[in-house]
Amino acid sequence: MTHNHLFRLAARPVGIPTRSDWKFAEEPAPEAPPGGVLVKVLYLSLDPAMRGWMNEGKSYIAPVGIGEIMRAIGVGRVVESHHASFAVGDHVVGMFGVQELAVSDGKGLTKVDPKLARLPTYLGTLGMPGMTAYFGLLDVGKPRAGETVVVSGAAGAVGTVAGQIAKIKGCRVIGIAGGADKCRYLTGELGFDEAIDYKAEDVKKALRQHLGEKGGVDVYFDNVGGDVLDAVLTRLARHARIVICGAISQYNNAGPMKGPSNYMSLLVNRASMTGMVVFDYADRFADAAREMAGWMVDGKLKSREDVVKGLENFPEALLKLFAGENTGKLVLEVGTDA
Amino acid sequence: MTHNHLFRLAARPVGIPTRSDWKFAEEPAPEAPPGGVLVKVLYLSLDPAMRGWMNEGKSYIAPVGIGEIMRAIGVGRVVESHHASFAVGDHVVGMFGVQELAVSDGKGLTKVDPKLARLPTYLGTLGMPGMTAYFGLLDVGKPRAGETVVVSGAAGAVGTVAGQIAKIKGCRVIGIAGGADKCRYLTGELGFDEAIDYKAEDVKKALRQHLGEKGGVDVYFDNVGGDVLDAVLTRLARHARIVICGAISQYNNAGPMKGPSNYMSLLVNRASMTGMVVFDYADRFADAAREMAGWMVDGKLKSREDVVKGLENFPEALLKLFAGENTGKLVLEVGTDA
Repeated sequence: MTHNHLFRLAARPVGIPTRSDWKFAEEPAPEAPPGGVLVKVLYLSLDPAMRGWMNEGKSYIAPVGIGEIMRAIGVGRVVESHHASFAVGDHVVGMFGVQELAVSDGKGLTKVDPKLARLPTYLGTLGMPGMTAYFGLLDVGKPRAGETVVVSGAAGAVGTVAGQIAKIKGCRVIGIAGGADKCRYLTGELGFDEAIDYKAEDVKKALRQHLGEKGGVDVYFDNVGGDVLDAVLTRLARHARIVICGAISQYNNAGPMKGPSNYMSLLVNRASMTGMVVFDYADRFADAAREMAGWMVDGKLKSREDVVKGLENFPEALLKLFAGENTGKLVLEVGTDA
Repeated sequence: MTHNHLFRLAARPVGIPTRSDWKFAEEPAPEAPPGGVLVKVLYLSLDPAMRGWMNEGKSYIAPVGIGEIMRAIGVGRVVESHHASFAVGDHVVGMFGVQELAVSDGKGLTKVDPKLARLPTYLGTLGMPGMTAYFGLLDVGKPRAGETVVVSGAAGAVGTVAGQIAKIKGCRVIGIAGGADKCRYLTGELGFDEAIDYKAEDVKKALRQHLGEKGGVDVYFDNVGGDVLDAVLTRLARHARIVICGAISQYNNAGPMKGPSNYMSLLVNRASMTGMVVFDYADRFADAAREMAGWMVDGKLKSREDVVKGLENFPEALLKLFAGENTGKLVLEVGTDA
């Protein structure tokens, strides 16, 4: 490869991003820097958080600057190395950006084994989405066996894992997702107890039906915000815990976000709503990955990736997330492992 | 007294209540029931929560029924007794309702000593508002010495106590209240470090000014909701705790409440928002009252009541709360202790 293809941020989007918010460019191929490596990127993770990285302003991570390579986590293969810990042929996960060839000084790179799991799984269940589900559910939501756990964005990369872990912990699990296919996937393949199709059903009514007149939600793992969050707030159990993991329904609002107008249900039910950022748990990632890999081997935790091919399709592929078109972890296949 | 005067709920208000939402009536004076007492009501507590009790629907307590005596906590004197634990002349706090004479079987009645504190104080700092401040701040907010605590509705019955306890615990305290007089009261008499007049200042800007560019709010004790909650959400410190005690700015909305549109700040800052209801701490009220009475004796905890006279003025007196016209605990003087 003599050239690198890449996407640089060109503008700060208002509302839903369009192709013109990035500049697709061909640039000379980089070389491994002294003490560093050159990585051929194979798969890129497409995440709801990427929309936030495109905005200006304070968040848990600095925004991508205009003209900078669009930030993305990926998995790739080392093709050139001046680094003692990484050899040519090693497979690595890192913050490579939306491009075919990435250089790295080795910091933040993690070796992964393609024999233990398919490479895209290291961007999903065994990657950040899986870690987010694991720590968000277990450390923040703290579900107990027999409790009722509701997960929104349930067919997505984080939701599928959060719901399955809740099942492993002995909870009753209700997933909220958009579309009959996704709902069938949740109850049919992943073992969720119930699924609510928010595009076809009234979420509040469906919750009442599943929970009964007196039943309530003990843990709500929220990936979507908006009306779904408000609906679940009306059905909280006493001392419920809401995990605020994301609000994908609101990320493309040009105006202010819709706040949860039923938040006083927190008072009535002595409930809490707590935000989490997965990076805080970095020192426990390895342990969590080991436990989750064990569950995968036992068949208790299933992983699915939705693969779109071709770096040049990055903008359209990312928009699948916001249209709710993916089931499981959405990844972009950028190169072939050869 | 041969007659009792009282307010019965006549209609469920839409928006701000008006006098016609109650029926003022003169009825024959009741007698102490067998095994019970008759109480001459002296002071009634006027609380923001009363607005919620007038609405239909599920909450932490059943709504007042149409035709029922309007619910209110009061302090009074036993004038007739067939109860072994209460003698004529005893002063008692109980759920007497908005009336001059109340009967009770003794359940939920608490004797108070008018020599230790003025009677209205048992409805404020040594009553439910004080308990709410004590447990909301200490058990839910969990402030540590050196942290920054922000209190809204800071000049009200709960806010004055919450802010003063935060000072006792070694925190820096910023109060948010409406009007220059209230703000002067907070910093001049109660020892708050800063006060923000939300009617005259931009709360977000004022917070930035007091906290500095990098400083944040560790504990936010929220009594008001609405725009003030949204403003404070923009200035949270990492791992901030928001105590949801009330949302007085929203209680008279005819439509849905305004949800906090900046709630994703909980995620960015790994912060939490937790609701509380004071009744949950009933078994610790006596201990808390003892500790707070000690602080009062030491001059560290000051108590102030805003007294309106005359049972017949109940509707207009209650509305002072929603107009933010009271400083300290608002009470209605209903009878004289003679």
